[in-house]
Amino acid sequence: MSAVPYIALIASIAALGLAYYFAQVVLAADQGTDLMKEIGQAIQEGAMAFLRREYQWVSAFVAAMFVLLLIVPIDGRPYASFAYLFGAVLSSAAGFVGMRIATEANTRTANAARNGAADALPLAFKGGAVMGFTVAGLALFGITFNYLLWVTWIGVDDAFQVVAAFGLGASSIALFARIGGGIYTKAADVGGDLVGKVEAGIPEDDPRNPATIADAVGDNVGDVAGMGADLFESYAGSIVAPVVLVSLLAPGVFLDGGGKLLDFGDFEALLLFPILIGALGMIASIVGALMTRGKEGQSLSRQLHTGQYIAMGLTVVLSIVGALWLFGSAEAPGGGDLVQKPIWLALTIITGLLGGWAIGFVSEYFTSEHYGPVKSISAQSETGPATVVIEGIAQGKLSTLPSVGIVALMIGLSFWMGGAAFGSAGDVIGLYGVSLAAIGMLAVTGVIVAVDAYGPIADNAGGIAEMAELPGEVREVTDSLDALGNTTAAVAKGFAVGSAAVTALALFKSFSLTAGSDVNLDINDTAVTIGLFLGAMTPFIFAALTMASVGRAAQAMIVEVRRQFAEIPGLREGKPGVKPDSRRCVDISTQAALREMLIPGGLAILLPLIIGFIDVNALGGFLAGSVVTGFMLAIYMANSGGAWDNAKKYIEAGAHGGKGTDAHAAAVVGDTIGDPFKDTSGPAMNILIKVMTIVSLVFVPAFI
Amino acid sequence: MSAVPYIALIASIAALGLAYYFAQVVLAADQGTDLMKEIGQAIQEGAMAFLRREYQWVSAFVAAMFVLLLIVPIDGRPYASFAYLFGAVLSSAAGFVGMRIATEANTRTANAARNGAADALPLAFKGGAVMGFTVAGLALFGITFNYLLWVTWIGVDDAFQVVAAFGLGASSIALFARIGGGIYTKAADVGGDLVGKVEAGIPEDDPRNPATIADAVGDNVGDVAGMGADLFESYAGSIVAPVVLVSLLAPGVFLDGGGKLLDFGDFEALLLFPILIGALGMIASIVGALMTRGKEGQSLSRQLHTGQYIAMGLTVVLSIVGALWLFGSAEAPGGGDLVQKPIWLALTIITGLLGGWAIGFVSEYFTSEHYGPVKSISAQSETGPATVVIEGIAQGKLSTLPSVGIVALMIGLSFWMGGAAFGSAGDVIGLYGVSLAAIGMLAVTGVIVAVDAYGPIADNAGGIAEMAELPGEVREVTDSLDALGNTTAAVAKGFAVGSAAVTALALFKSFSLTAGSDVNLDINDTAVTIGLFLGAMTPFIFAALTMASVGRAAQAMIVEVRRQFAEIPGLREGKPGVKPDSRRCVDISTQAALREMLIPGGLAILLPLIIGFIDVNALGGFLAGSVVTGFMLAIYMANSGGAWDNAKKYIEAGAHGGKGTDAHAAAVVGDTIGDPFKDTSGPAMNILIKVMTIVSLVFVPAFI
Repeated sequence: MSAVPYIALIASIAALGLAYYFAQVVLAADQGTDLMKEIGQAIQEGAMAFLRREYQWVSAFVAAMFVLLLIVPIDGRPYASFAYLFGAVLSSAAGFVGMRIATEANTRTANAARNGAADALPLAFKGGAVMGFTVAGLALFGITFNYLLWVTWIGVDDAFQVVAAFGLGASSIALFARIGGGIYTKAADVGGDLVGKVEAGIPEDDPRNPATIADAVGDNVGDVAGMGADLFESYAGSIVAPVVLVSLLAPGVFLDGGGKLLDFGDFEALLLFPILIGALGMIASIVGALMTRGKEGQSLSRQLHTGQYIAMGLTVVLSIVGALWLFGSAEAPGGGDLVQKPIWLALTIITGLLGGWAIGFVSEYFTSEHYGPVKSISAQSETGPATVVIEGIAQGKLSTLPSVGIVALMIGLSFWMGGAAFGSAGDVIGLYGVSLAAIGMLAVTGVIVAVDAYGPIADNAGGIAEMAELPGEVREVTDSLDALGNTTAAVAKGFAVGSAAVTALALFKSFSLTAGSDVNLDINDTAVTIGLFLGAMTPFIFAALTMASVGRAAQAMIVEVRRQFAEIPGLREGKPGVKPDSRRCVDISTQAALREMLIPGGLAILLPLIIGFIDVNALGGFLAGSVVTGFMLAIYMANSGGAWDNAKKYIEAGAHGGKGTDAHAAAVVGDTIGDPFKDTSGPAMNILIKVMTIVSLVFVPAFI
Repeated sequence: MSAVPYIALIASIAALGLAYYFAQVVLAADQGTDLMKEIGQAIQEGAMAFLRREYQWVSAFVAAMFVLLLIVPIDGRPYASFAYLFGAVLSSAAGFVGMRIATEANTRTANAARNGAADALPLAFKGGAVMGFTVAGLALFGITFNYLLWVTWIGVDDAFQVVAAFGLGASSIALFARIGGGIYTKAADVGGDLVGKVEAGIPEDDPRNPATIADAVGDNVGDVAGMGADLFESYAGSIVAPVVLVSLLAPGVFLDGGGKLLDFGDFEALLLFPILIGALGMIASIVGALMTRGKEGQSLSRQLHTGQYIAMGLTVVLSIVGALWLFGSAEAPGGGDLVQKPIWLALTIITGLLGGWAIGFVSEYFTSEHYGPVKSISAQSETGPATVVIEGIAQGKLSTLPSVGIVALMIGLSFWMGGAAFGSAGDVIGLYGVSLAAIGMLAVTGVIVAVDAYGPIADNAGGIAEMAELPGEVREVTDSLDALGNTTAAVAKGFAVGSAAVTALALFKSFSLTAGSDVNLDINDTAVTIGLFLGAMTPFIFAALTMASVGRAAQAMIVEVRRQFAEIPGLREGKPGVKPDSRRCVDISTQAALREMLIPGGLAILLPLIIGFIDVNALGGFLAGSVVTGFMLAIYMANSGGAWDNAKKYIEAGAHGGKGTDAHAAAVVGDTIGDPFKDTSGPAMNILIKVMTIVSLVFVPAFI
């Protein structure tokens, strides 16, 4: 049984090896013309410069938290401080490596697109897979190493609280990466588009627009680094939650016949199962990634998704095998089995996996032009932008119905199954099942992030093709790759938001178990009620702050682009040799994003601390309110935004008169509004609800 | 002490008398030219026809609920059925009378505007006051009569559950009036505007536009009848909640030295205090209304608000006097006073009153062109509609911060004060204080509805002046009256939403006390968690459904208006004698509103019933989730919508280039999106959260 952590270490090292191999494949490909190299380098410099400066800010914050964890009376101190630091460092490293390679893959994908999609697609996928497997590999490695270090090797008391601090470290990085990246990407996109397309009348990605490079940088810092850090955190959190939960449930639940706590060894399998699933899912993901190849004559979507489905299928099989293997020998003292029906635990994993896929499908349904919602939004473009916006908001809000239905079903089923595994369905031990469902959702994180990070690489490749003035056919190839990226993004967002909700829930349960009888979470308690109101408010404020940030940053960008068009002679007319000052736009985005991320990021950490020190009951209500409302806003904003984006594309493809009509102009308004919805505020909700819960969990001993 | 109900009956009859007197004053005024009469009649016919058909639908629903209350095993059956019917009938009657007079006052206000604002303002106010005092008078009469009938005269067991059924009756009417009216008004407004202004290039309220009459009808059915029914329900609910709460708290709290329940007479004062406050607030409102007069040379705002402030000031004084009088003699057996410090109870009333006013001020701050938010939205119009929408959404969401702050403070303070009054701050008896705060908010309902219903009357008067081609000066006068109406509407909305939240909360506490130990509301319970998710989702779905309804109904209107412009020769050109077929547009709005209100309205009743019969714990979570999220959406949508409306007006007044510029066109987009936000979906939240809670309260005995 104690082989499990070592299996996980090996799996995580294999994942990192795969990332290394893919990186070599990407770097070996040809970068194309000198102009392409130059553009690619500008994007990479901008992206890495942002990341460096972001990390400078964040390291000050991490240092402060490190000290706080050293001085505040929490369980596991001072080990927790080091675990925290470790989580923060690993998450930063994953972001750094992943983005470095993504910004190498973009030019090479553009170059490969000259030979057609079958050459370009695998390159873009491999570029994304470096991020995917670095994230998943480092996260699993970190968790497992922490587990071994504190639980097995050193045997620290409160080791599980220390493991939770690792999750908090990952959260801290994810918080700022998500918010800063989200603001950066949309400031450049919205600001650049408004002046470029609307005022100067030049197309998207035109080299004359000074904001074009900043826009391409934004895709990397937002969609690659931001999403990567988010899923690192979710993945780590999903494994941390059941481990902490079991250790907290133990004194009340795992008793021998005489009411005495079982020996640690008797229920250790429950702690190891989440780690085992992480390892098995990783192996499945590696296999899936290796099966993703470009094939002439096969639809692009099929080429990209085959690996994902293989990984999911393998995970289903492996989790059944793993559960039977691990719990076949998990006998409780006295001859009975602690886990009476291990198959139910495997089924919770499968429930989570299917649930994540289903939420992804709901996102796809609401945001793809093949289904009703986008068609109906497009149809509203005939009566102007107002009706486009109204319909988009209505559809986005409506999409919470199936999404919540799936999450509610998943929670209910996995709770029941969790209990059934122990022979006591409906009991508190069912919570273990709920926390396993979150792992099931994230078991194949490697391929999911890979497929998701593929999107911005393809998008960048298109921009580079445009800026480097490659022939029209190349742009057509990159456009087809990019269009596919929009769908894959929807699926990844589904996993990200679904897992955020379930992980936050599992962490919330851990929070309240840690607080134990010191907290009263009855909704009737007046402090809990007030907390619920404040909690439900917080995601709205967060959305307001991040949207306003994008607005302000975009305005700064507009002023700069206008200035360049006015002051650089020949720029607007495209006189040969006249170049915009792209670096300045990159600087503006960077500074704006860094400045604007501080208030919302700081709030997410401070609010639970402040409320917790005032009243723990209120904190419980606060967390519950923010998790449920944050989930609604995450779903609604992501789906409204995605639907507007694709409604615009649908019209551009010829519906309702096509490009240049009033209908198209109306759809562009929807798309612009959707930008901060889907790429800034919506995704920020995921990390908001997780970070507030994990802060509360780590600090709860200090509150009470 | 038993004089209190009779004082309340007298006060309510005085209110009805005042309404009658004001109605006579309105009817005695001159209606103006024949054309004005004709237009006025068309509006009135349309409005009354809608109300009649709405009541037909609703009476089928009320009949079904009546039967359900007869057959389902709930407390107080079969009396509850009759109380339910009584509530429904009184609310309908108030809507009928109020709208009848409002549609008489509009032409007369337009006519009086020919002599200036000082003549027109009091007439519009009196027209609104008929609605205000009919609503408040009938509601207080109904509650008091019910109380006397079941508690004092007949002495029914479970009389308090029967009184709650009266509230449910009022809710049923309010639900459909709010939703149907909201859809009607915006279908006509959005549809008419889009074709008229955008396509046909003719101004607002132009007699050539076939939807103009339907738009004017919409103001009445939405803003007069809808708001009236909403506040009838809130007012009734706010008095019902503490009465039910006290009766439920009694067995646990009101014990003599030996642990035996006190005699009813010993705590009857607590039941009578809410009714007394209703009576005193009514008297204060009557005085305030009589002090509202038109004065040359005084600002319109001051003329209109003086009465409101007088009513509020008087209520403060009277509630202190009332508390000291009523509880001066409320001695508990054994010589101690049950209410040790009655002043604290008066202070909860004052807290509520100030809280309602403060939320109203927040609404005004976020929606008036005198403050930052609207200015900042207007400034964004320079970069097009997308930035206007983004900024409007951000500001609306941000406005939840102060609003929630006020509600949280109000709940916390009134809970503490409620306990302090009994000498046991922090105890469950503090809930009584929370429920009193809701009454404080609504004590001056008479003047608040009066000032609010003034708005649509002034708006209608402007439309009539335009359609009847009165001179430009008249239109200027009505415009000044109308502009004031926008601010008063913001304040009334503040009271409506604030009281909805606090009333729903008080009813929720009653719900859980009724369920007692049969319900577990710990957030950690898995059913409660699932309920929270479903509850938080429901307001989003409600918003989606109502917005989509407006979209569909507006489309139907657009098709019809386009048809008329195409098929009626000379209509677009304004050939003398050529008239649009307004009646058909009125029919379309009516049918669409009635059809579209059924699904959301039905859901609001059915969801709590379905969930309650499945699992009461889940219902508890569901209600909590929907109350807090519904409150956020109500605030956000109302304030975003109001802000867009006034940003447009601010630009029309000359800012950012004024009418006809691109900036103005951008602001018009925001305004159109804001229409269903502020007048359909936002206000529907208030009634949604109240109706779901009161349904749960009445049916809870059947669930367990």
